Amino acid sequence: MKTVQKGVTFPRGFMATGVEAYIKKQTRDLAVVYSEYPCQAAGVFTTNKVQASCVAYNRRIVENSTVRALVVNSGNANACTGAQGEEDTLQMARLVAGELNIQPAEVLVASTGVIGVNLPMDRISKGIEQACRNLSADGGDDASAAIMTTDTFPKLAGVEFEIGGRIIRIGAMAKGSGMIHPNMATMLAFITTDAAITCECLQQALRDSTDISFNMISVDGDTSTNDMAIIMANGQAQNKVIDNPASEDYSLFKQALDQVNIALAKMIARDGEGATRIIEVEAAGAKNNRDARIIARAIVSSNLFKAAVYGQDANWGRIICAAGYSGVDLNPDMIDIWLGRQQVAQNGSGLPFDEDLAREDLAQEVVKVKIGLNQGTGQATAWGCDLTYDYVKINASYRS
Amino acid sequence: MKTVQKGVTFPRGFMATGVEAYIKKQTRDLAVVYSEYPCQAAGVFTTNKVQASCVAYNRRIVENSTVRALVVNSGNANACTGAQGEEDTLQMARLVAGELNIQPAEVLVASTGVIGVNLPMDRISKGIEQACRNLSADGGDDASAAIMTTDTFPKLAGVEFEIGGRIIRIGAMAKGSGMIHPNMATMLAFITTDAAITCECLQQALRDSTDISFNMISVDGDTSTNDMAIIMANGQAQNKVIDNPASEDYSLFKQALDQVNIALAKMIARDGEGATRIIEVEAAGAKNNRDARIIARAIVSSNLFKAAVYGQDANWGRIICAAGYSGVDLNPDMIDIWLGRQQVAQNGSGLPFDEDLAREDLAQEVVKVKIGLNQGTGQATAWGCDLTYDYVKINASYRS
Repeated sequence: MKTVQKGVTFPRGFMATGVEAYIKKQTRDLAVVYSEYPCQAAGVFTTNKVQASCVAYNRRIVENSTVRALVVNSGNANACTGAQGEEDTLQMARLVAGELNIQPAEVLVASTGVIGVNLPMDRISKGIEQACRNLSADGGDDASAAIMTTDTFPKLAGVEFEIGGRIIRIGAMAKGSGMIHPNMATMLAFITTDAAITCECLQQALRDSTDISFNMISVDGDTSTNDMAIIMANGQAQNKVIDNPASEDYSLFKQALDQVNIALAKMIARDGEGATRIIEVEAAGAKNNRDARIIARAIVSSNLFKAAVYGQDANWGRIICAAGYSGVDLNPDMIDIWLGRQQVAQNGSGLPFDEDLAREDLAQEVVKVKIGLNQGTGQATAWGCDLTYDYVKINASYRS
Repeated sequence: MKTVQKGVTFPRGFMATGVEAYIKKQTRDLAVVYSEYPCQAAGVFTTNKVQASCVAYNRRIVENSTVRALVVNSGNANACTGAQGEEDTLQMARLVAGELNIQPAEVLVASTGVIGVNLPMDRISKGIEQACRNLSADGGDDASAAIMTTDTFPKLAGVEFEIGGRIIRIGAMAKGSGMIHPNMATMLAFITTDAAITCECLQQALRDSTDISFNMISVDGDTSTNDMAIIMANGQAQNKVIDNPASEDYSLFKQALDQVNIALAKMIARDGEGATRIIEVEAAGAKNNRDARIIARAIVSSNLFKAAVYGQDANWGRIICAAGYSGVDLNPDMIDIWLGRQQVAQNGSGLPFDEDLAREDLAQEVVKVKIGLNQGTGQATAWGCDLTYDYVKINASYRS
């Protein structure tokens, strides 16, 4: 299975577009995705107690009905905006439904951007009108551009694979940058597929896949009010409906979904605000996968280690230190650490290593760290980015 | 009670010094504190699972015996240094004991600096010899300089107060800068007092005081392997022994200790690596004090809010967002927020506010934030600093 750079219009029966609604300045900032056929849908949502109204709204929609469309605006999160904010979310769904001649309950809504400011509904309204008239079978790229905030590049990933002789496609777009952190409180991802699959299987596949992809990235430790991953499946591949999580078909679908989601997760990590490099941390030999996930994320989230990577400083003490405060019960005297090509610590103590080689490895596009706990078979991989001057610069004046 | 800038030699019967042991380059890096009389001692220690050998060592010492001296080196943490590291900690105690003609079990040991490198014991040994011969009743300042790492100024605080007609003094020194985070996994603080107090009362006072001072500061979210606060009480004030936590004497002592520790905690926050301003966050109206502490710390630890303060950007959305992901069960629709002199949010939604005034308040030496949860009477205050270009710069090349 090869990952291709294709977005939400890669699977059959989906159209999309991204337009300038003038929520932000001179850039696409409103996307609509439309399926010609009803879709099963599933979603995972932010764990932040403060949630934008679109989060609760989408949760209801995916639980109660099939969906046909998705509208996303960037530039304004419509969070902490009170009753007016809730009304605006509903209104966005109504406007899309009106244009596309579908039901408001078939429309998912997402927003991203500044918190605490009401949406400019006049402009949103005109943007929706324009977008719905502009939908196209190759509008996935424009849609992916329209959901960006401080992202420096659009994030697209797709795969094509076969189930029972039928070609199935998955296509997706995501936005990340600031506020990327585990627990799904992190980013927006919208995934489409033409697979025929039950709502239950879709939900389980998305949840499990999210745990090893979007929930394993970290840019700055903050978890946002708006984050979600949503998947829509319209069944146009005409495969036998995937309805059993124990089946081989499900397993194939899940594998393909993982591939797309991990590709997007890594793009998000790479595009962390101000980042110059990806950090990939593998934790192995933990008591279980859960412990491994916690340790890998603690390391990849450590400001001190992230700054050390930026400075190409092979300061492995910050790796073991982060494992130590992760909350996992571990034996420090059993820990081994590898930085790039070299082992730098064994049984919790430093080994002599070649500083020049380490500096070279720390200058790679992907900086690889492995920590061995030697306490079991738990394994996990997390992705993050270095902490740079530019991170501070971008976030010191986000609203300006 | 007035806080004065006096260190560990402020109380009667204590001597100290700080010397150049050449662990670092051209700066004092080894301190010894000595009491002419046996001291009750208490300590609180890092919660990191990876701990320097001096942490376990001191824990044993304060549990089992009275103490007479303390030796601290900066520049090398003696953490992740294996059996040799443990032996070196013991050897430091033996060397001090030999010079001062006391027992090794009466000597506390602390180290701070780079992880994973063995101590240069030849230089440490010469440094200890020199320090023990240099002890002086006004050596508190030199000692406080010798425990610094990336600190930009020494941190000293003392108070003088009366119990039953006797003058009691508390003096202290601390180091902070990088890796400052709640849960005592954060910094070094050494407190001396001439109060007569039982070991049990001293331990309780230190633990409770730490919870509202050192455990309420955050610079970068990383918790270190070496952090501790230690207090030594030699009884030379000749007051009636404080032996009851319910007594008025205890209460007076605790109040004085809080004052010293909070003063030091604020200095540490102010001196966060690269910091230009203190952020003081008060959480009020939480269900209980514990919830308030968690919320205040989450806000003061948010990279995004810290960067916004640096950029004087009144982005209160990042404040409510941090409260939301703190883990505390709260009702977002009840939250009020004040930034400096203005209320900026009410019932979870934004209020119109004067941006110029906000920018002025965000330019103050101490930036004040208050969040009202309106759910109870829990209250807490946390201190941190802004996130700046210089933070990244310092930590990108810590070992160089």
